[in-house]
Order: sequence, then C-alpha cells, then structure tokens
Amino acid sequence: MAWYNDTGKDCDVVLSSRIRLARNIAHLPFDGYLSRSDAEKVINDCKKIIEENSGTRDFEFCDFEKADAYQKTSLCEKHLISPEFAKKKGPHALIYSKDCDIGIMLCEEDHLRIQAFSRGLSLSPAYDKANKIDDLLSEKLEYAFSEKFGYLTKCPTNLGTAMRASVMVFLPALSLTDKISDVIRSVSKMGICVRGFYGEGSKSLASIYQISSDISLGISEEDMIKRVEDVTEKIAKLEREERRRIFENSKAQILDKIGRSCGILKNAYLMSSNEFFEHYKNLRLGISLGAVDNVSLETLDKLFVDTMPATLICENKSADKTECENSQRRDMLRAQMIKKALS
Amino acid sequence: MAWYNDTGKDCDVVLSSRIRLARNIAHLPFDGYLSRSDAEKVINDCKKIIEENSGTRDFEFCDFEKADAYQKTSLCEKHLISPEFAKKKGPHALIYSKDCDIGIMLCEEDHLRIQAFSRGLSLSPAYDKANKIDDLLSEKLEYAFSEKFGYLTKCPTNLGTAMRASVMVFLPALSLTDKISDVIRSVSKMGICVRGFYGEGSKSLASIYQISSDISLGISEEDMIKRVEDVTEKIAKLEREERRRIFENSKAQILDKIGRSCGILKNAYLMSSNEFFEHYKNLRLGISLGAVDNVSLETLDKLFVDTMPATLICENKSADKTECENSQRRDMLRAQMIKKALS
Repeated sequence: MAWYNDTGKDCDVVLSSRIRLARNIAHLPFDGYLSRSDAEKVINDCKKIIEENSGTRDFEFCDFEKADAYQKTSLCEKHLISPEFAKKKGPHALIYSKDCDIGIMLCEEDHLRIQAFSRGLSLSPAYDKANKIDDLLSEKLEYAFSEKFGYLTKCPTNLGTAMRASVMVFLPALSLTDKISDVIRSVSKMGICVRGFYGEGSKSLASIYQISSDISLGISEEDMIKRVEDVTEKIAKLEREERRRIFENSKAQILDKIGRSCGILKNAYLMSSNEFFEHYKNLRLGISLGAVDNVSLETLDKLFVDTMPATLICENKSADKTECENSQRRDMLRAQMIKKALS
Repeated sequence: MAWYNDTGKDCDVVLSSRIRLARNIAHLPFDGYLSRSDAEKVINDCKKIIEENSGTRDFEFCDFEKADAYQKTSLCEKHLISPEFAKKKGPHALIYSKDCDIGIMLCEEDHLRIQAFSRGLSLSPAYDKANKIDDLLSEKLEYAFSEKFGYLTKCPTNLGTAMRASVMVFLPALSLTDKISDVIRSVSKMGICVRGFYGEGSKSLASIYQISSDISLGISEEDMIKRVEDVTEKIAKLEREERRRIFENSKAQILDKIGRSCGILKNAYLMSSNEFFEHYKNLRLGISLGAVDNVSLETLDKLFVDTMPATLICENKSADKTECENSQRRDMLRAQMIKKALS
C-alpha cells in the first residue's frame, strides 16, 4: 500500500507532510565539480548501507542513467525526485521505499537528499522517518559539517539544519477568491513560503500548494517543524471558513459543480489528466463539505497520483508503453481506472 | 399516461406521427373577418359536440382568453397548439384529450384544426383518430367544401384534403455531418418538406426535425400518408447508416460524449432546458447504439416534454409559479426530475 493511501490529520486541507534533509560527504567536491568515479562511489556506498540495514522494509534502487523517461517522470509525479533531478546528466540515482514514503536522491544538487513523507499534517512522524535514515547513513559516512554553519550544502540557503519541512495543502476556496495572495504575502515574513505543486517556480495544480520552510540556519528542526505546522493550521482554518462562506452563498452552484464532476468521472470514456485535476478539485471539496457519498479522500488522492501521465503507464501492467504514446489510449485507461475506483 | 409514453415503430429515429385537418364552417367568414359572436358560437358548438360524444375518453377545454402564459406555452411545448395560436387575440380555444393525443384548435387560422398524434412512425393510426373526431363534428356542423377545391381553407395552400401529415424525426448523425441539407433539398421536390422543431420557420432542437406533407390538393389522404411514410423510412435508413459510420470512425469520442451526458444528467443539481436538449440528444443516440443501460427511449422522450420550461411548472404540483419565475429554481426542479427519472 502506498503511503498516500492513509488518512491523516487535517486531511480535508493537508494532503501530506514532507521532510527533506540535504547532506554532503566530507572532503568531496560539491555537485558540478564531482568526478564520475566519486559520484559512483557516493551512489554505491549509500546503496550498500541501505541494502544491509533496511530491516523489514523493502527498498528499490533506480539508476537514472539507465531509467527510461516514463520511470523518471513517474518518480517526479510522486514527488520522490525533483524535476531538475529527472533532467540531470551524469551518474545519479534514487533509493526509495516500495511504498514511496522514503526517498534518497543521490548526486542531486547535494550528494544526498533524504526525503520522508507522511499523510496529512504530520511533519514530526515524517521527520522521525527521515532522521532514522540519516542516522543509518551517518554511521558509515562522514558528512560535511561545520560547528558554525551546520550541515554544509551546495546552496548557502540550505546551511544549518539543511532541512526543509513542507506540506501539500488543498486550498480551492482561498484560491477561488484569490485570498491566497494575501496568505502568501503574510507567511513570507516568517521564513515560510507558499509555492506551486512542484515547488520552486511551479504553478498550483488542482488548487494544491506547497507550504514550506524557507530557512534552515539559526533555527532547530523541532522549532521549524512547529512553525510550519502552526502556519499550516492557521491557513487550514482560513480555508475552512472560506469554504463555508462560499458554500452558504452559492450552495446550488457548488452542489451542481460537485455533482457534475462526480457524474463525469464515473461515466466518461476519455479523461485527460488536466481535466481530471479540475474534477478532483471539485470532488475533494465536495467530500469535505459532506456533499459526496461513497468516495473517500484516500481513494481520490490515490487516484490523483496513480492517474498522472507517466505513473499511469508505469503502474498499469496492461498498458503497452508504445501504445500509450497515443494520448487517446492513455485518456481511455485513465477514465477506466477512475470509473473503477469511484464505483 | 401521455400518448408520448408509448413505444412505436422506428422509434430510434421517429419520435411521433401527427395528422392535422383544417376545417371551416360554411357561410362564415374566415379568421380575421369573423365577428366575436360568430367565433364564440364556433367554440361553443364544438365544445358541446365533443362533450356530448366523447364516449369513454376525457377531454379538457382551455379558453385562451383566460389561460395564463404558462398554460399556453406548455400546450405549445406539447405541440397541441401552434406558437401563433398562443399569441392570438380574440376568442380562441383548445379542446384536447387528457392524454394529449388529440387536440382541436378553435378559431386558429382556420375555424377548426383537428390534430391527432401517435408514437413512432404511425401516420395511419393518427389519421384514424383525427378522422373519427372529424366525422363526429361534421355530423353536426356544415363544413365549407367545394367539389373542385375540396375543403376550403383560409390559406389556399391548404385546399384539397386540408390535411397535413407530419412526423418528428431525430437526426443527430445526419445533422452532425450536415447531410441533412441534401435530404431537405431532395424531398422538397416530392411535396414534402423538412422543418425545425416548431414547424414553419423554426430551428431544429436537439437534432429533432419535422418531416411533413407540403401539398394537399390533388392527392388523397391515403396517398399522402404513404408518401410521407416512404420518405421517412428512407431518411431513417440514411440516418441509421450515418450513425453506424460515425460510431465506427469515432467510437471512443462518441462513447465519451454519451457517458458524460449520462453522468451529468444523473448528477447535476441545476439543469437548463437548453443544456438538457444537448444531453438528451447524446443519450437518445446512445440508447439506439446500445451504449446506454437502464434508460428507455420512452423515459427520455417523456422527460423531453415534461421538463420543457412551462410544462415543468404546470405539471409539477410542488412548483410555486411565482417561485419558478426564478430560473435557478426551475433549473433545480428540472435537475431533480431528470435525476429521479433516470435512476
């Protein structure tokens, strides 16, 4: 079962929590100056440590010099890698847990980027998972660390704890009335920023935004996690108030929109991913307003990931990759998956 | 049960058959020159004859000088009167059977216009019904009739049998590919014309057209009925071929369109009549292609009439007419009726 299949705290607004730790190996140059053999050594050392210490958990290894475009994009859709990582040249790899809640990007901007995910507003559990992996690796590897600057990273904005704490939030009401702009402005003063679906410079997708810590120097991991959680709870409260306000003012129109999206998802024969995002948004809002029966947030959020263009192809055994170059075939498969999941 | 609730011959293409007979009372001036008292006499005489001879059938009487706008428009939506009749000034009235398969417009363009409807391609049964009413009335009334010109009518184009035989046909495929233009051109040479939903000068609605006889002088009722039926069968054959062709060429797109319309109709919370016509078209096509389960042509065609703006208000007991001035309230009622009928 994928991790995003769970329910979680504040699930009506918060989809998931994520911790990312950046680490570099001492005495090795940063990315861009790292030799091929050093990069391969970083990858192989980490792979070995995880293989020997994974315990009961299953991990997968993906060599990005060998992976095909669908695999790369699918991992990006699952947020296990950054879009930049997918495009990178030279040796780089990903180790990730089978249920996709842990990922270690090797030779990204930093030598190691450990990520852990958890459902709903739950940064501490995510931090615990990331920390465990970090402990395991740090036992065998020597990290680049300074008493003054903390973990040394390629980009100086990541110095200190080198941690980024972020949550994916669903803000259809705040974005409909564009109150999201005020929210973005006001949190930026607290070392926290609101970004699009794929992080820096990306747009929101289906009214999903990323709230994340923007500094890591001069603040402990625990304090930053608390700060992100506090801000997220405040935003969630605003979002809920806005949903109620909109619903009271335009009940018929909102129920109509939700009902239509539900009907279309259960009956369409072709469904593009962009169209799905729109219906996903309406249905997710509908579930939180109590206006949709028999569909859970978990089912819907799982569909959101499973029907992404590349993931759809990678995880559908019946899908022939060549055949799926044809977008109609993909849209047909997506519609079938959605129909099956919702009925 | 309304007559349009039945199944009928060639129902996938032919919705209904209609016979209209125009009659005028001898020695009375035509409409426009008829005095108020003469008009009232025509109305009362006919009313009396029907009341005394209706047998087991229930007839309604509607005085158009007293009827409200909703009643008039609803009768027009059911094709029991012409749009011109609804707008007319002075004494005019309608006698109609409770199940709406027989109507007698009094003081329309002609003193009497007897109409009879029947489901599917069935002009002869419709003619029998109209003829029976005509026989009944002609026993007591003296019609204006000449050996040379047949029944005398206000407009010379109606001389002769003064009969119009027409069928309502559903031609989504021929209208999609615009082959309907060729059809219209080719039948016009045979004294037959293809018109829009409300007859002369009107547009098609939901791909529904009216095929009707255009002449009544020099041809017997039986011959004209046969001619209209033959032409209709030919058009039905063309339409079916075109449906199959389109379906084979764009199966996924057609199934998608049908599925979506089905999903929207079963789940929308607000539905305008114009939007309904579009979904009706897709669903009706879907039923004939075997792509829609659990919805019959009869259910759908009944909805088509029942959800028309004025009929919706007149026949829905829970509908407050003042409240229904509000189009959102109407759209909500319509959506509820559709949902109920289709589930």
